[in-house]
Amino acid sequence: MESESTADGRLVDLSPAECWDLAASRPVGRLAWNGPHGPTVIPVNFTVDGRSVVLRTSAYTAAAREAEDSLVAFQIDSFDEAAHTGWSVLMRGRAERTTMESPHGADPQPWVSGPRTLLLRIEVDEITGRALKSRS
Amino acid sequence: MESESTADGRLVDLSPAECWDLAASRPVGRLAWNGPHGPTVIPVNFTVDGRSVVLRTSAYTAAAREAEDSLVAFQIDSFDEAAHTGWSVLMRGRAERTTMESPHGADPQPWVSGPRTLLLRIEVDEITGRALKSRS
Repeated sequence: MESESTADGRLVDLSPAECWDLAASRPVGRLAWNGPHGPTVIPVNFTVDGRSVVLRTSAYTAAAREAEDSLVAFQIDSFDEAAHTGWSVLMRGRAERTTMESPHGADPQPWVSGPRTLLLRIEVDEITGRALKSRS
Repeated sequence: MESESTADGRLVDLSPAECWDLAASRPVGRLAWNGPHGPTVIPVNFTVDGRSVVLRTSAYTAAAREAEDSLVAFQIDSFDEAAHTGWSVLMRGRAERTTMESPHGADPQPWVSGPRTLLLRIEVDEITGRALKSRS
C-alpha cells in the first residue's frame, strides 16, 4: 500500500482533520515503540481526546515499562480486503503516564479485564495518513 | 489487549507454529521500524515463505530507504469487534533486499499498482503471539 499510485489503486494523502476523524472511528490501534529487543507493536484499544490518544494498560506490561516517557507511534487502519481499498493513519508523540481521567469521560475500556490502572496519554505531534481508493 | 488476563477476556500465548498459521491467513500486515523521525508503521500486503515474510515495494518508499538492512518488526492481527476476541502476532528480523522470486511463486501482489520492483525479505528470528479469547 506504500508508494506512489498508478493503476489499480490510487493513494491519496489525508489531511490531519481526516486522519483524526478516521482514527476516532476505530476501536483498536497499534502502539509501536523501539524496545530493548527492537521495534515492538501491540494492538490496544484507545480513545481520542482532543489531539491526544489515551490508552489504559497495567503498570506491568511491556508497553508501560518501555514506552512511557518515550517517542512512540500509534497506527490505525481499516481495509476492505475484497475491494483492495482502505486507509492508514500514523501518529507520533511522547507517551506519558497520566492519572487524569479524560475530561469527556471517554476512557478506553480494555477488552482484557483485570487491574489496568495506568493511563498512557500520547500527545500527538505529528499525524499523517493515506487512503487507498479504487479507480472506479 | 496487553497484560495478564482475568475476567472478560483470556489472553493465551500462541506457539510459533500457531503464529505462522495465523499470520499466513491474513493478506495485510504492518511493517514497523525505527526511522529517522521515530517509530514508523505502515500496512503492507505480504506472503509467508518458509520462516520468512516477503513484501514487494518500490525502491523509493520510506520502507525501502529506511528499513532495508535493519532490524524490523512485522505485526499481523485480526479482531472481532463485537465479541472482543482476536489475536496478534509479532515477528522480528532483519529486512533485506532480495531479487529472488519466491520458490513457491507466491510473491505478494501489491494492492497499489505501479513499479514495485523491490522485494524485501524479513528473515524472522523471533515470533510471538497472543490470542484474546472470550470466557464463554
